[in-house]
This record gives sequence, C-alpha cells and structure tokens, in this order.
Amino acid sequence: MVSKAKIKFVKSLQVKKYRKQEQSFVVEGAKSVEELLHSNYTIDWLAASEMFLKKNENVIQKRKVEYVVADEKELAQLGHFQTNDAALAVAKMKPNVAPNLKDEFCLVLDGLGDPGNVGTILRTADWYGIKNIIASEDTADFYNPKTISATMGSFCRVSFFYTDLPDFLQRNTQPVFGTFMDGDNVHRIDFGKSGLIVIGNESNGISNRVSRFVSQRITIPKTGGAESLNAAIATGIVLDNVFRSKK
Amino acid sequence: MVSKAKIKFVKSLQVKKYRKQEQSFVVEGAKSVEELLHSNYTIDWLAASEMFLKKNENVIQKRKVEYVVADEKELAQLGHFQTNDAALAVAKMKPNVAPNLKDEFCLVLDGLGDPGNVGTILRTADWYGIKNIIASEDTADFYNPKTISATMGSFCRVSFFYTDLPDFLQRNTQPVFGTFMDGDNVHRIDFGKSGLIVIGNESNGISNRVSRFVSQRITIPKTGGAESLNAAIATGIVLDNVFRSKK
Repeated sequence: MVSKAKIKFVKSLQVKKYRKQEQSFVVEGAKSVEELLHSNYTIDWLAASEMFLKKNENVIQKRKVEYVVADEKELAQLGHFQTNDAALAVAKMKPNVAPNLKDEFCLVLDGLGDPGNVGTILRTADWYGIKNIIASEDTADFYNPKTISATMGSFCRVSFFYTDLPDFLQRNTQPVFGTFMDGDNVHRIDFGKSGLIVIGNESNGISNRVSRFVSQRITIPKTGGAESLNAAIATGIVLDNVFRSKK
Repeated sequence: MVSKAKIKFVKSLQVKKYRKQEQSFVVEGAKSVEELLHSNYTIDWLAASEMFLKKNENVIQKRKVEYVVADEKELAQLGHFQTNDAALAVAKMKPNVAPNLKDEFCLVLDGLGDPGNVGTILRTADWYGIKNIIASEDTADFYNPKTISATMGSFCRVSFFYTDLPDFLQRNTQPVFGTFMDGDNVHRIDFGKSGLIVIGNESNGISNRVSRFVSQRITIPKTGGAESLNAAIATGIVLDNVFRSKK
C-alpha cells in the first residue's frame, strides 16, 4: 500500500523543476529497475510486485533498499506509463560532471528535443559500447521518464553531460564528425580510433554554432524518397559504420 | 471556424474502430499534409492556417479540396498532437491489397506493437526506396495518428499490406532475411538483388510461426552493454547494409 503523500511526491518527479529540486528521478518497468538495482545509482525507494521483489530479493537486501509491495494499479498511478506490472523506483540523480575522455568515441547531441529519441540514442550508444554522451543545454532531459524508459536500462551504463557545446568543442582536440545532407559518404569514411560524433536537432540539424567545429561532414546515402531520417535512426546507422571500420 | 460536429467526427478518427467504419484517417502537421496534397490519396477535408493555405493554394484548388481556415488552438483541438500550427487533413484509407512484388526488397513486420516505431520504420524504408511493407495482422495500425506522424510524409510513398504472415511466406519464393541474436554478421551478408527482411516484435523478436520461413538469420554485431536494439534502429542498420551491398 502506497501512501497518498508518496504518490504525490513520486508524481511530482515527472516535472523537471521538481526533479532538479529533489535531485531525484523515477525509473519504471522490470527491465529498467533491475538494471538500476545492479548499478551504482543511489536508490531511495522501490515499489514492486511480490514477484519482482522475490526475483530480486538478494540485491534488494544487499543494498538495503526501502521497498513497498504494489499492485499494477498502484504502479500505473505512481508512474508516467500506463502499463507497468512489475516495479518503479526513485533514484538519486548524478552530478553533471565533465567526463574524462580517453581515446574513445563519444556522441554529442545538439538540441535533440524529443526525450524518446534521446533515450533510444542512448540505448544505441550502449549497444556499441559508448560510455559518454555530451549534450547541449537545450537537449531533452536525460532524467525525463520517457528518456529513461526508452533507454531500456542503458542509462545505467552511459554517462550524460550537459554543457555549452561551442565552449566544450573549442577545447576538444579529437576529430569531430557531423551528419549533413551534403557530407561525404559514411560508407567510405575512416573514423579512426576515437572522435566526437555530432547528432543534430530533429528538425533543424546541427546548429551553426556547432557546425563550425565539425572537421568531417558525413552523409548516409539515400536511394529513395524520404527527405530525412529520424535522428536516432541516423545515429544507429552512423555508429554501425564507425564500429565496422574499427575492426 | 470549425463546427462542433466536425470536431467530434475528426476526433473519432483517433480510434481504430471509427477509422475502419469511415475508411478515413487524419494527417497532421505541415510536412505530412503537404505530402498528402501531392499524393494520390483522396482528401475529404482540410483545416489549415491562412499561411499554409496560401502556400499550397495551387494544389488545393487543382484538387478541389474542401477546406476551412483554422488557428493553432483549433488544430490542436482537432488532432492527436498538441502542437500543430499549420494543417490537418482527413483522407480516405486505401484498400488492403496484396502488392505485386517484383525484384525488390520488402520489409515484413512481425507483430510490431508501437505505432511510433512502425511510422519510423516506414520513413526509413522510404529513405532506401522500399515501396512495400507487409505486416502481420497484430502489427500497429498504419493509419494510427502516431504512425502517420512518425512517417513524416513517407506514408504517401510506401504501401502497407496486412496479412497472415505464414500464409504469405508460404507462397514467397524470395530469400527471407531475419534479425536474431545468433545470426550471421550483417556486415558479411550478400543480400543479392531482392528479398524480404523480417523485423520482429519489440520485446519478443520474430515469432516461431514466422522464423521457420527465414532462410538467412542475421545479427548486428554488438560491442557494448545493451541487451538489444530498438526495432526501428535495427531496421535502419540492416537496410544501410542491404543497400550498401547492392552498389
């Protein structure tokens, strides 16, 4: 049984202002909460079905997570999503700290507006072993419930850093790849061993402020009629080419 | 000014049952409605801003489309999406007819549940010039407003056919490619000149009923931690490899 005050508190975390104030966010669904339990995030509270609690009792005990049994109706009431028959957790946000980049590939998100897109991009980055994503301050919130959900647990393995991109890129010494309509064929690019891959806004692409730092313009060859690709799809295709050329 | 009866009618088309009954669907947003105006869909009605009407007056006159001037508030009220400052149209659905496949690549969707995913897949297919998508009967509705919106106008160029997949595949003579966790590396496959590419359900992948028709199992190599890729992302990566190997 979840108290009314708790429901009110958890629901308030759907709003960015309250997430920031509480430095807390919500994770929904069996897969995501399981990954959270095995991550280094601090977990404040867990509401879950008896089946979920039983399946994960070892890690819940070991981490001394405060929990409550909740049914499907309560979980749906607590969360953003209408279908959740397993678990919902409240966890602490991590501080927004610049990553210590080594010789690695990184994604740079320039004004990605859709939380679902950002989450899907993060999941795709994780598939390819990318550890760090740098995002402009106007990129959708990493801790938005739609972002977290779309990552399918990958938010536990990929770090996110919000910053002023021109300022960040000014100090960068790695090659910077960016997708444009008029770039070089992505199939023929040698991506080398490390670099930044810039993904532009869904409607407007890479901004002028950022495009001047791009050292290699790339394009995904098109053979049909669509004017553009979804930003997350473009990311997946580019990353498949980056990691193909590494082998 | 849009009448109350019209608002009620247009809103009813958000529900599949009423779409089917009326054989009509809704298209929202400037880009999608512009593509619709230049397509061979029958258009019943258009609500749009004065700016949109002015920009597209030639084609609207030529096609004799019944239209009404509507402001942002009315457009949002009529449609599924809360932001639409340009246009909304009601069009007639096309009959569900088996395509006459030639030597071409086709997508086969096996129980894709999310309308946004289906729309993004259709947009990606269109980028590569795919003309036909075959879908199992439990795949999300092509005419769902979320599907149509995610296609960004590509629904005008790609045909969709719902059918019983095992029945369809039984009569197929083309190679059938399908994504699995244990298939051959997609980078090393010769896709030839034509074939069917099966995309499985978001959670369960390709069903047993369908997998027995797959002649070539393929896998997108992974170098990181995510358990799986989003179905639309996987489609994009596979198609980039299919059309790369054709050149």
